[in-house]
Amino acid sequence: MAESWVNYAERIGSDLHLELSGPGSRRAALIGALRDAVRSGRLAPGTRLPPYRSLAADLGVARNTVADAYAELVAEGWLTARQGSGTRVAERTRPLSTAVHPKAPAATPAPHPRARGPRRSPAIRHDLRQGTPDASSFPRSAWLASYRRALSQAPNEVFGPGDPAGRPELRAALAAYLARARGVRTEPDRIVVCSGFAHALRLLFKGGGGRGGGQILRGPLAVEAYGLPFHRDLLAAEGVRTVPLPLDEHGARVDRLGRERAVLLTPAHQFPTGGPLHAERRAAVVDWARARGTVVLEDDYDGEFRYDRRPVGALQSLDPERVILIGSVSKSLSPAVRLGWMVLPERYVADVLAAKGEREAWASVLDQLALADLIVSGSYDRHVRRMRQRYRGRRDRLVAALAERAPHVEVSGVAAGLHAVLRLPPGTERSAVGDAGRQGVALDGLAEFRHPDTDMPAHDGLVVGYATPPEHAYGAALEALCAALVSSGTRGS
Amino acid sequence: MAESWVNYAERIGSDLHLELSGPGSRRAALIGALRDAVRSGRLAPGTRLPPYRSLAADLGVARNTVADAYAELVAEGWLTARQGSGTRVAERTRPLSTAVHPKAPAATPAPHPRARGPRRSPAIRHDLRQGTPDASSFPRSAWLASYRRALSQAPNEVFGPGDPAGRPELRAALAAYLARARGVRTEPDRIVVCSGFAHALRLLFKGGGGRGGGQILRGPLAVEAYGLPFHRDLLAAEGVRTVPLPLDEHGARVDRLGRERAVLLTPAHQFPTGGPLHAERRAAVVDWARARGTVVLEDDYDGEFRYDRRPVGALQSLDPERVILIGSVSKSLSPAVRLGWMVLPERYVADVLAAKGEREAWASVLDQLALADLIVSGSYDRHVRRMRQRYRGRRDRLVAALAERAPHVEVSGVAAGLHAVLRLPPGTERSAVGDAGRQGVALDGLAEFRHPDTDMPAHDGLVVGYATPPEHAYGAALEALCAALVSSGTRGS
Repeated sequence: MAESWVNYAERIGSDLHLELSGPGSRRAALIGALRDAVRSGRLAPGTRLPPYRSLAADLGVARNTVADAYAELVAEGWLTARQGSGTRVAERTRPLSTAVHPKAPAATPAPHPRARGPRRSPAIRHDLRQGTPDASSFPRSAWLASYRRALSQAPNEVFGPGDPAGRPELRAALAAYLARARGVRTEPDRIVVCSGFAHALRLLFKGGGGRGGGQILRGPLAVEAYGLPFHRDLLAAEGVRTVPLPLDEHGARVDRLGRERAVLLTPAHQFPTGGPLHAERRAAVVDWARARGTVVLEDDYDGEFRYDRRPVGALQSLDPERVILIGSVSKSLSPAVRLGWMVLPERYVADVLAAKGEREAWASVLDQLALADLIVSGSYDRHVRRMRQRYRGRRDRLVAALAERAPHVEVSGVAAGLHAVLRLPPGTERSAVGDAGRQGVALDGLAEFRHPDTDMPAHDGLVVGYATPPEHAYGAALEALCAALVSSGTRGS
Repeated sequence: MAESWVNYAERIGSDLHLELSGPGSRRAALIGALRDAVRSGRLAPGTRLPPYRSLAADLGVARNTVADAYAELVAEGWLTARQGSGTRVAERTRPLSTAVHPKAPAATPAPHPRARGPRRSPAIRHDLRQGTPDASSFPRSAWLASYRRALSQAPNEVFGPGDPAGRPELRAALAAYLARARGVRTEPDRIVVCSGFAHALRLLFKGGGGRGGGQILRGPLAVEAYGLPFHRDLLAAEGVRTVPLPLDEHGARVDRLGRERAVLLTPAHQFPTGGPLHAERRAAVVDWARARGTVVLEDDYDGEFRYDRRPVGALQSLDPERVILIGSVSKSLSPAVRLGWMVLPERYVADVLAAKGEREAWASVLDQLALADLIVSGSYDRHVRRMRQRYRGRRDRLVAALAERAPHVEVSGVAAGLHAVLRLPPGTERSAVGDAGRQGVALDGLAEFRHPDTDMPAHDGLVVGYATPPEHAYGAALEALCAALVSSGTRGS
């Protein structure tokens, strides 16, 4: 049951006042709160939102902040704006249930860019949000063949309680694969299977996870000044403070590391800005970890997708006792296969297994066997190669289209991965996201990824996930993106 | 709107005549019709039902059929029977649609049975620890057929980020299945898929899980004085204090509930001692949850495996807004398929989804689709039926063997489930576990399951998981168990 706007605004107002600090975060907090209210059904479809001025006065924020928030949510498809009828909750948004939430808190952290937003919203015709591979390219036949083989050959014990480390078949396959593809130095018994990167992070930082009842790792944790808000939120929920490291053209400024208790990096391909960590810094961060008696967490989220140069090997290979490498198949295969892995220094293995529990409680054992077969049979490599070619082709088309249609936009971070960053003139990012939305293009601005505590200068830019659309739809998506940039570019110059 | 019994009986009579065929289905049809009438409110709380004889005459069925139906519905808590006052519709039953939730309560968690320890120890030749189904009985062909069908029919979006509620196909299949098999009253959008019972418990109690940054449910949590230590440990790791409720021959002493913030029960089959929660207590605990503004967590860990009597319907059906039912396929299929579900009151759905994350981060989406197909195609029911027969056969062999070889041992809790409890003379449990070990039999004593804070008298006993060994090895396992008990019995007397 939805509540009236008036009641809602009252609650949202007091909650928002608590969290509002800078102008950027006011806007983000307001967007998050409104989106959440629509998503959860607290604001019913068709509800008319108050005029900018009223809400701004109620909340004690600038009118532009409210206007921006409405525009953003219109672009995302949560709200609709029609001349003369004001801004309303879009009709197609439907609450998950018709639940009454009498005490449900209003403001929630703004959903991260990977969020399951209205991907199927009719307003979004082109999904260029980063984070997922082309869902139409999942290797169904190869996967099914591996699954069938694995299932028919599995010993009965597979269907028993399971080992929290993961199936030995998969750990052996991963040890060999990661050595070959990423230069990782490890052994199967230092690999622990999990359900993805977020699961790994939770295992390492959750309270009571360690055998003494404490955490395995503790904050404060140094992170890159630009990164996934989802990870920061997850850490915050575990009580872990994150401290941003500025970025420059050589990657994270690891010389700024001080008394943090660990550091989380994307060394192969900084997410989302795009460069690899400079060789000297790779060495320096491992030295820091040694001196501090701690570890580097290496988020190897897209290490398999390299285009114009030799792959950057995993940082882990510099010192397997000082780096925890975390990877998954979410980008190489699909996030629907909930499998990831942690490659651990020896001294952490027992604690991570204890944190995971006494049995396999998380990762589908049958999927583990299927993935092991996929890797050992060579199908995984073939799929990665095919996707690398496809994504490289998309990257090339993106660069070419922008060079022709929007030459004022600088493209960066395109040597690898599933996304590019389009640098924009200062002050134009927000309007560019809005323009894209009006062209039916969903994507995120760089600001979404910026750590709230960083003092490094902000850069305007768009993060374009070129892997996300199905192959047949990519051309139209590019076209719409260029159209948006042309209008933005005009305004920005 | 309630109607009088007379009017209702007239209609039910004509309806029933249409569907009644054999004696079994008459009884089932009558139970179903009466349950529906009470549930829907057609028969109002407090309505007195006619004597057996009158209804039997009206409907043209045997008196025993009516008596059985009344008894079943009393056991499920729909009706109450009191000397001198006849059979009445229970006061607490409330129709689904009129549920009112004046204030969202603080709420609760639930546990269940899983084994641990050196399953593959060379000294263990016979594994009779409770907690897992026969791993050799996994329905490989049916599962693979469902998996293949699901994978080939899946739309591309399946391979995208995923919905944290779980695949709609699975939630729809579960809603229908649970209604049919367990009497659960719900809808697909109140079901959230998870990776098993422990995951559900973590989602409900973890810090930062709720949208305000707190827990969805808080301790202290009342639990049964005997239960899985794994669950208590998990809750303790989340900072949740558990308070034991004593058990007697009618199940948990829910009259002892006081200021706890929620309660976790195994109403269908107390784990591990074995009895169902008495009908009056079923009603009482729901009343308590209403009065406290909280919920009952129902651990429905083996509800499908009933042998000598009609299944006890889920407690959840008494009040879907006051009970969170948690189930999984860990016992019905295999713990290797990491899938479970939470059936939630409306007011918790959004919070649980927020705690789970913005995407499906846990449960294999492909396994979800396969399970949905398995259920819809009828293969799941066939498998459960086959396993029920098999386990019943094992239960019978256990009882017969003990009656012959170790008549001093009392067997209890055998009407259902995958385990039995062998009651032992006081002071003999530890030596009996040791004797079993010397015969190569792994099993647990009751003491393993006892809450450390309970003041109820301890009972000596062995928990025998008769489902665990493969079929061909069960005879030898029984033989070894009896040999151990004979020596123990001698010492104990």
